[in-house]
Amino acid sequence: MKINPYLIHSKPYFIAALFARRDALQAEGRDVISLVMGDPIEPTYPGVQQATLKALEATPVSQYPKTEGSLAYRQAIADWAQRNYGVTLDPKSEIVSANGSKEAIFHLSFLFDWSQGQEIWIPSMAYPVYEGAAHIQGIPLRKLPLSEATGFLPDLDAITPEQWQRCQLFWLNSPHNPTTAIAGRGYFEKLLGLAEHYGFVVCSDECYNELYYSPEPPVSALEFDSQQLIVLRSLSKRSHMTGYRMGAIISRNRELIRLITKMRAPMGVGTPDFIQAGGIAAWNDDAHPKAFAALYKARRDRLVSALEAKGFRVFGAEAGFYLWFSHPDYSQSDPLYEAFIDTGLLLAPGHCFGEDGEGYLRMVYCITDAVTDEVVKRIGQLQLP
Amino acid sequence: MKINPYLIHSKPYFIAALFARRDALQAEGRDVISLVMGDPIEPTYPGVQQATLKALEATPVSQYPKTEGSLAYRQAIADWAQRNYGVTLDPKSEIVSANGSKEAIFHLSFLFDWSQGQEIWIPSMAYPVYEGAAHIQGIPLRKLPLSEATGFLPDLDAITPEQWQRCQLFWLNSPHNPTTAIAGRGYFEKLLGLAEHYGFVVCSDECYNELYYSPEPPVSALEFDSQQLIVLRSLSKRSHMTGYRMGAIISRNRELIRLITKMRAPMGVGTPDFIQAGGIAAWNDDAHPKAFAALYKARRDRLVSALEAKGFRVFGAEAGFYLWFSHPDYSQSDPLYEAFIDTGLLLAPGHCFGEDGEGYLRMVYCITDAVTDEVVKRIGQLQLP
Repeated sequence: MKINPYLIHSKPYFIAALFARRDALQAEGRDVISLVMGDPIEPTYPGVQQATLKALEATPVSQYPKTEGSLAYRQAIADWAQRNYGVTLDPKSEIVSANGSKEAIFHLSFLFDWSQGQEIWIPSMAYPVYEGAAHIQGIPLRKLPLSEATGFLPDLDAITPEQWQRCQLFWLNSPHNPTTAIAGRGYFEKLLGLAEHYGFVVCSDECYNELYYSPEPPVSALEFDSQQLIVLRSLSKRSHMTGYRMGAIISRNRELIRLITKMRAPMGVGTPDFIQAGGIAAWNDDAHPKAFAALYKARRDRLVSALEAKGFRVFGAEAGFYLWFSHPDYSQSDPLYEAFIDTGLLLAPGHCFGEDGEGYLRMVYCITDAVTDEVVKRIGQLQLP
Repeated sequence: MKINPYLIHSKPYFIAALFARRDALQAEGRDVISLVMGDPIEPTYPGVQQATLKALEATPVSQYPKTEGSLAYRQAIADWAQRNYGVTLDPKSEIVSANGSKEAIFHLSFLFDWSQGQEIWIPSMAYPVYEGAAHIQGIPLRKLPLSEATGFLPDLDAITPEQWQRCQLFWLNSPHNPTTAIAGRGYFEKLLGLAEHYGFVVCSDECYNELYYSPEPPVSALEFDSQQLIVLRSLSKRSHMTGYRMGAIISRNRELIRLITKMRAPMGVGTPDFIQAGGIAAWNDDAHPKAFAALYKARRDRLVSALEAKGFRVFGAEAGFYLWFSHPDYSQSDPLYEAFIDTGLLLAPGHCFGEDGEGYLRMVYCITDAVTDEVVKRIGQLQLP
C-alpha cells in the first residue's frame, strides 16, 4: 500500500502541539491557563438542549436523517435569514444542513473538477481545515498574503489576471480567524465582481458573524444576490453548540445546491434528526447570540485594556472571541509567547498560523468572568523580556 | 467554475428512483408496501435512548468531540470484541469512532496515494457508497463479477497477478448486501494471503454480522491478526440506530489507525459525546442484537416459505435483513418486479445493483410482524406473468 504522502509528512494540528506544551508545564507543577482553543466553556443556549431532549424522547424508533436536513430545519434557517438580513431564501432549493461548518469546508471541494490545475485560494493565515482539506485531497493551493498594511485581508489588487484564471474556490473568512479582520461591503462587491468575471466561486465562512461588538453586524455574503457565492454558517459559536455539530450551506445558486446535495448523499453527513430539533431552537432565537456577544464584549474590553496597558497593539477585535495583537518592541512571537507562559497564560504564537503571523499572538477569550479576572491579573504581572 | 463531472452525469441513488415509483403509484391510489430500504422501523435498543438522554441532560456545556472518539467509547468496543470474538484490542491505538460506517467508507480512501493508477476493488453488486466515493474522488475502480456459480463472492482465482498488482483497497462485505453471501474462513485466509503478498488493504464492512440465523455467527475479519486489514462495524442495524450515526473503524495495524486519526481531524467527523454515550450502551449489551435477530429470523422463515411456494429460489438469507431471489422461469428482473407491484409490494430489481443482478430481486424485511403478515398474504396472491 502507498499512503497519502501528506498524512506522513504533515505536522500535527498546532493546537495539539500547544496542548503538549501545556501538559508538560502542568507536569512540572506550573499553573497555566490555556487560551488557545475556540471552544466555548459556558452553557449552550438552554433552548437547544431542551429541544434536543424532547425530540430524542419522542424518538424510540431511529431512522436515517436526510442528507439535506429536514425541511423544518431548513425553514428555520430561511426564517432566521429573513429576520436578520432581510433576504428571502427558499429552504428546499437554497439551503442544506451540515454537521457543523468544519465538515462542510472539508467536503466542498468535491463539487469541482480539479483536473486542469485549478486552485483553492485561502488567506496565508487561516483556519487550518481549508489547507488540510486541499492537501489531503491533493488540490493545488494558493495562499494570499495578509499584513497590517491591507488590514489582514487578501489584497485583491495585487493579483494578476493570469493568476485569477486559476482560482476556482476562494475562501473568504470574515470576521477572520485569527486576525479578526472584517471585510466591508466594498470588499465583498469587488471580490464578487472578480468571481463573476473569472468564473470562480467565493465560499464565505461566517461562523463568527453573530458575535460582534460594533454597532452594526459584519457584512454577510447573504446580503448579496450572486450565483458565484456559497455561504457557510455554524451554530457552534453563536449558540455554544460545538459538541452538537450543526451548521448550514446556503447559496442562491440552486444548481450548486442541487449538486451539493447529490454529492453529499454518499458521505454520511446527515445530522441526527434530534440534533436538528436543537438546531431549529437555536436558529429561532435571535436574543441569545446577542446576550453571548454582550458577555464576550465585556471580557474583550477588559482584556484589551490590560494588553494596551502593557504596550500591546490589539487589532480589530470587533467580532468573534479572539484577540490578535503585537508589541512595537518585538518582531518575533516567541519571546512574547514565553513571557505569557511565565505569567501562567498559554497563547498561540502567530507563526502557528503561517509565516505572516510572525510577531503576533492570538488569545482566545471564550472564557468565564472568573477566568477573565485571573487572566487580567496575570497580564498585569507580565514581565516583557 | 468546472463542476466534478461525476456529479453532473451520474444517476441518482436507486432508492430515490424506487421511491419516485412508489410515490407515483400512491398518487394513483394504489396501496404499495415499500420493501426497498434497509432502515429498521422497530425501536432502537432502549438502553441507547436512555443513555443518550442521560448524557445530554448532564451536558449543559457543549464541547468539541474528539475525532477518534472518547476513550470510554473505544473501551466499550474493545470489551465487546473480547466477549464476542475472544480478541484483545487496544482501545487507544486500534479503534477509532465513526459517524456510522457510511461516513467511514466514504473517507477511507484518503488514507492512500492514488497517483500511480492504483485501484479500489468492489463487488459488481454492492452498497453504492463504495462506488460513489471512488467516482466522486476520481479513483479508478474495478468491479469484480458476482454470480451464483461462485456463491456471489468475488472469484479470487479468476484474477491475474498483473491485476492484483493494481489493487490498493479491496472492499469485502460479508454478509453481503444485496445477495446475503457470507465469506467463510478459507475465503478470508486466501484473501489476506493475497493482500500480504501484493501489499493491498482489505477493508471488511461488517454491518450485518450480528444479525445472523445460522448456529454460528459469520466469520469476522476481527478474528484475523493481520496488518493488511481494516474492519468497519456499525450500530445502525444491530442496535437499530440508523438515525444516531455511530460506528467504528478497527485495525491491528496501529500505524494505519494513527494515520486514519490524523486524516480525520480536519473532516469534522467527531461524533457528539452524548451519542457516544448511547453507543457505549449499545456495545455493552450482547442480548439485544440476538433478540432482534430472533425477530428477523421468524419473519425471514415465513417470507422464504411464501416465496418458495411460488417457485422462487431464495439464496443465502443466513444474515442481515434482505432476501435475494430469482425464479427459474424468468431471466429478467423487471417482469417479476412489475408482478410484485401488481400485488402491492415494491421490491428492488436486481439490476439496480449492477448488470450481474439481472434476473434477481431484493426484498427488505426489517419490517414489523403485522407488515410481515400482509406481505406473506400478498406474496400468496402474486400472479406471475
